[in-house]
Amino acid sequence: MLCSWRVKLKLLLATITLAVLLSWLYLFVGSLEYGRFLLLPPCLGEQPSRDVEREALASQVRRVEEENQQLRMQLGQVQAEGSDGIPQWAASAEDGPPLGGERNNRTACPKQRMVHKCEEEASLKKAMFVSGQLLHVAIVCAGHNASRDVVTLVKSILFHRKNPLHFHFITDSVAHQILQTLFQSWMVPSIHPEVSWIPNKHYSGIYGLMKLTLTKALPSNLSKVIVLDTDITFATDIAELWAVFGKFSEKQVIGLVENQSDWYLGNLWKNHKPWPALGRGFNTGVILLLLDRLRRLGWEQMWRLTAERELMSMLSTSLADQDIFNAVIKQNPALVYRLPCFWNVQLSDHTRSELCYTEVSDLKVIHWNSPKKLRVKNKHVEFFRNLYLTFLEYDGNLLRRELFGCASLPSPPSDQLQQALEELDEDDPCYDFRRQHLTQHRVHLFFLQYEFLALPNPTDVTLVAQLSMDRLQMLEAICKHWAGPISLALYMSDAEAQQFLRYAQASEVLSARRNVAYHIVYKEGQFYPINLLRNVALANTQTPYVFLTDIDFLPMYGLYDYLRNSIQQLELPHRKAALIVPAFETLHYRLTFPKSKAELLSMLDMGSLYTFRYHVWPKGHAPTDYAKWRTATVPYRVAWQPDFEPYVVVRRDCPKYDQRFVGFGWNKVSHIMELDAQEYELLVLPNAFMIHMPHAPSFDISKFRLSAGYRGCLQTLREEFHQDLSRRYGAAALKYLTAERNL
Amino acid sequence: MLCSWRVKLKLLLATITLAVLLSWLYLFVGSLEYGRFLLLPPCLGEQPSRDVEREALASQVRRVEEENQQLRMQLGQVQAEGSDGIPQWAASAEDGPPLGGERNNRTACPKQRMVHKCEEEASLKKAMFVSGQLLHVAIVCAGHNASRDVVTLVKSILFHRKNPLHFHFITDSVAHQILQTLFQSWMVPSIHPEVSWIPNKHYSGIYGLMKLTLTKALPSNLSKVIVLDTDITFATDIAELWAVFGKFSEKQVIGLVENQSDWYLGNLWKNHKPWPALGRGFNTGVILLLLDRLRRLGWEQMWRLTAERELMSMLSTSLADQDIFNAVIKQNPALVYRLPCFWNVQLSDHTRSELCYTEVSDLKVIHWNSPKKLRVKNKHVEFFRNLYLTFLEYDGNLLRRELFGCASLPSPPSDQLQQALEELDEDDPCYDFRRQHLTQHRVHLFFLQYEFLALPNPTDVTLVAQLSMDRLQMLEAICKHWAGPISLALYMSDAEAQQFLRYAQASEVLSARRNVAYHIVYKEGQFYPINLLRNVALANTQTPYVFLTDIDFLPMYGLYDYLRNSIQQLELPHRKAALIVPAFETLHYRLTFPKSKAELLSMLDMGSLYTFRYHVWPKGHAPTDYAKWRTATVPYRVAWQPDFEPYVVVRRDCPKYDQRFVGFGWNKVSHIMELDAQEYELLVLPNAFMIHMPHAPSFDISKFRLSAGYRGCLQTLREEFHQDLSRRYGAAALKYLTAERNL
Repeated sequence: MLCSWRVKLKLLLATITLAVLLSWLYLFVGSLEYGRFLLLPPCLGEQPSRDVEREALASQVRRVEEENQQLRMQLGQVQAEGSDGIPQWAASAEDGPPLGGERNNRTACPKQRMVHKCEEEASLKKAMFVSGQLLHVAIVCAGHNASRDVVTLVKSILFHRKNPLHFHFITDSVAHQILQTLFQSWMVPSIHPEVSWIPNKHYSGIYGLMKLTLTKALPSNLSKVIVLDTDITFATDIAELWAVFGKFSEKQVIGLVENQSDWYLGNLWKNHKPWPALGRGFNTGVILLLLDRLRRLGWEQMWRLTAERELMSMLSTSLADQDIFNAVIKQNPALVYRLPCFWNVQLSDHTRSELCYTEVSDLKVIHWNSPKKLRVKNKHVEFFRNLYLTFLEYDGNLLRRELFGCASLPSPPSDQLQQALEELDEDDPCYDFRRQHLTQHRVHLFFLQYEFLALPNPTDVTLVAQLSMDRLQMLEAICKHWAGPISLALYMSDAEAQQFLRYAQASEVLSARRNVAYHIVYKEGQFYPINLLRNVALANTQTPYVFLTDIDFLPMYGLYDYLRNSIQQLELPHRKAALIVPAFETLHYRLTFPKSKAELLSMLDMGSLYTFRYHVWPKGHAPTDYAKWRTATVPYRVAWQPDFEPYVVVRRDCPKYDQRFVGFGWNKVSHIMELDAQEYELLVLPNAFMIHMPHAPSFDISKFRLSAGYRGCLQTLREEFHQDLSRRYGAAALKYLTAERNL
Repeated sequence: MLCSWRVKLKLLLATITLAVLLSWLYLFVGSLEYGRFLLLPPCLGEQPSRDVEREALASQVRRVEEENQQLRMQLGQVQAEGSDGIPQWAASAEDGPPLGGERNNRTACPKQRMVHKCEEEASLKKAMFVSGQLLHVAIVCAGHNASRDVVTLVKSILFHRKNPLHFHFITDSVAHQILQTLFQSWMVPSIHPEVSWIPNKHYSGIYGLMKLTLTKALPSNLSKVIVLDTDITFATDIAELWAVFGKFSEKQVIGLVENQSDWYLGNLWKNHKPWPALGRGFNTGVILLLLDRLRRLGWEQMWRLTAERELMSMLSTSLADQDIFNAVIKQNPALVYRLPCFWNVQLSDHTRSELCYTEVSDLKVIHWNSPKKLRVKNKHVEFFRNLYLTFLEYDGNLLRRELFGCASLPSPPSDQLQQALEELDEDDPCYDFRRQHLTQHRVHLFFLQYEFLALPNPTDVTLVAQLSMDRLQMLEAICKHWAGPISLALYMSDAEAQQFLRYAQASEVLSARRNVAYHIVYKEGQFYPINLLRNVALANTQTPYVFLTDIDFLPMYGLYDYLRNSIQQLELPHRKAALIVPAFETLHYRLTFPKSKAELLSMLDMGSLYTFRYHVWPKGHAPTDYAKWRTATVPYRVAWQPDFEPYVVVRRDCPKYDQRFVGFGWNKVSHIMELDAQEYELLVLPNAFMIHMPHAPSFDISKFRLSAGYRGCLQTLREEFHQDLSRRYGAAALKYLTAERNL
């Protein structure tokens, strides 16, 4: 079947297509809005070639065929799109610095002073001759799943590192947004993450050849770089690997570990014809690249010519950077420096990796290059699994430590934060609140697969809410009540985020949805940062309207359609209004959810439902005027009143929530007040409702804060909020203060 | 004030007392039931001397005074108790092996074969000349809090280690039980934990001089040992520290790091007179001891004479091993090997530790020797804090990895488990259940302070339940309803256990109780191991009776007293009976808890309460005969029926729960069935009741298991249970199978 004429024809087509594309890639490069660099990779191929299992071959062939088809269709389009790019680094290779020097070393820190006492340890530090140097790491990363994987890799590197690091991420638009936000909020001292987006979305997922283009893609003054796959875990300081550059001979330019599978030996099955390679070939999960020398050698031309020649003379089923690296090396064996195997222990089934790690007591880098990942058959998989899980669940906040004896890279946001923190008065009774407000939480946007809307409907509306672990069971229920887009901020630890991932993947209801965006805000500090969470969920919506709700409410069935109709009928695009969805509650934990307003009203009369917080805080919703609502058939306007905190539908460019309010109290009230200050009409929807579901009191440390001190502080924060409101909205805002005083 | 005559008098008294005790300690040693060794330490003193802060001195003086008083009272008692001991190791020092040799190296693993490829790394391995050697570590540990602390220390050691380790724990009875269970259930390969109990409970907390006696306390053929305080965190492989033994000169026998506080300089305040020391003195948080040489030097006599002499000539306010070590070294400076400071970075306020770690790029050991712990004032405390938190919350299961190239220490339980696991059939539809059943969960008993009962009342009864994080909020409520002893198994991750600790310490209700035992069972696997948890909670009760309940029930007020009276009146010590507490439920989450049976009955009539699971599973409790209960005034007997699962009070030696039932289903039913098989009378209590409180459906991955496959499996497990029952109870047990088939 493999050799049928159809396959041959398709492979021939693929070969020709690739040749055209390679030529084009060689000629074209463009610059990017982010001011760094741009790649429009017209690259054919598939996932980076791994040690493909025999049984996986059939499906691989089909995939290649499909990709070829797709590529052919896209070819014209790419050439049209690409031609306006300007090669930024086409200046080509300059003379590099002498080996071991570091041109780019702008943040190097002073050499460590070794005191007499530690002389005895000096021999251990041989690898530390890179002490203080800035190390460069390049990682190609595309899509939601790789964006999660890469975090585990980065954690494992940060955990062991003692050097400042410069990460170069080459991403698609999805990973770009995720990683940009993640690293900005992570604020690890002495790392410089540079996230470069490849804006052609047609190519997301096809990054197989990116590693070949790094001599051009990375800054032209960068002389060396470590290139890593996302499925790598470090078990040692990456500086040790960097130090291996020092061992390269004059001619060597690429450091690689030998392949631990039999793939390139070409004996895996009958007629198995892999690309040419030196012996077992090399694995490209970990690469040391001497960029300056490669540029001088004319690397771009070298790999392109090799690729073209091989494509002409053979029919290959796999096609990725690894094949081309190997073919080039086969031609020029002197280029390669053979890294010891422990720098890339490859955990496929049936590999020789065991020969590697049983021979050495140290394992330095693990490469999960089996599609089975943690379920790979390896008698020591438990050991490797534990190393991996360590970083998967590791609290990333703990990696925000300064390096000793190293000047940090200057980081304006971090410096500002530091200054703000230093200005806090520890004796201020509201110190804890202010501290929490200043806390920079790590944020991982779009943690799970999410399909971005191409063209949002002008009346479309996203449900916006926030939650922590103890409300996870509400997600399925909400999804069943609301078919439209949802944006959620989840307040979790790193370990909890993994638990959530497993939960979501196991849930049929959740895994069937692609329009629910989950944004993880990592836990830090004593208070639940409720308004920060709301703002994260709000900011990452795509529809023109948002329904601002809380996680323990179920919207009535059909609310999504009803809201979109109401937005249209009320001509919301042309007026400034907040649509109020009246809120009810049940104290019964097995509720038959009312199917209509009529049913709701009769349940209200029966006493099995109440208006929300009727028993404990009636004024929060009294201004909704439930009596009027009973008989209303058209929307009606209501006036703002103190402590009013309805759930509303507004444009997504509405004011943000005030993040000074953390924990409980005044977090929604202040937002509604600001809507009123901005003269939003408050319109109650006559046929919409939502019901609060009961839950046991939540386990929240903040409940211990519901003391006199807590209340006093809340009062202080309210006064400060009023002052800010007056500053922004002038005398008109005084009415809020007056109204409150009259209570 | 310090020099007032009263203080002087007391110190003189203390001095004399100590001298007597030291002489006695020198003469007396005994042997222990655990077959290892025994210490009856007649030791005076206080917590190991730390770098005591000036401001802490006053309270320290008072404490020493109190201790001295206590010691004087106990002195006669000790001598009476101790005199029947037989010195086990009085044989004194034999000739040790030549330095570097290792007599005790019975589990050494084969020397690592270094392959050609790793030659370049060989220089890094200089410290690894201890490769494969068994390393010995001794830790003194007493009480609940130190038993928690020591886990963090051990995790930090295990995380970095590449060698087999032998831990020698010298404990009080509390720590003995905790650590014994913890390490047995932890089952880390290639470690040998030896927990030795000091059975004299009068001395718990007074372990200040234990480290001086290690030449006698540790096995006489042990030639060297690393001695650690519990407030230590390792940031490197302990083998590196062990390698330092190789640097000792002929005369050196003790390796220590210099003190980083000014304590021994004697200039902290006017008339501050510390014990004599060499310069700044040495800190004893980390000690390398060459035991064989110390024995040959006559160490016991040496330190005793020094201590006596110094006590005569000076009035000291602090008195602990560190002072005596320093005084001995002052006399014999040649004994000490000065360890580089990074082997014991001492994080008190105002220490010179910063001078240490800013001079070296590596930190190897952190010593939290400030009473302020993580709140210590140190500008790099964030860095140290993160290292500490890493191990505090680290999943201990991940440390169960084999060492490469090392023969494991033979471990029968671990081998049995391995065999059982290998016998499992992966294609068995019940594989997951059986796997969970075999899982060996780590167990940390008595996680919080708990006061053991000296003489339990013969009718006393403990409330027994189990829970996970999402039911934590029930604890306070239950404590308010039940004043008696409680034994709880908590199913948590390491990180959650720390969250729970903070919660319990912050809760006034929980922190006021000393009769609630919290046993942490660490999470592992997919199913909630409900019956394992019940058995852990049950096994660790102290009263003759137990009330077997679930965490989401609130007992009626006064149930504790009512049960004890019923036990007495029904003469339970003389009959085999299970007392049934009738169970009810509310669907309302704001319940006014009924104060009496009458009130309960009227709420039942009003429909605000139901009999438990009336709507979903009536037969679970129908045999309780609620109709009869309404009017009953005396206990009445009921007959077992299929699926009956009442909450009962039984003797604590009742049958265990069957642990094959994990997750949901049949976990209580099987237990009640076995009670009936053992011919327990089932007696319903006429004036007892308990009420199930509503909660949102719990987030439990197992709910995704409620599939046909799950049910099929449960059926298989039930059949297997029936077979086992027949095997144990003969033909009589057939009735259960018949009853079930007739349903």
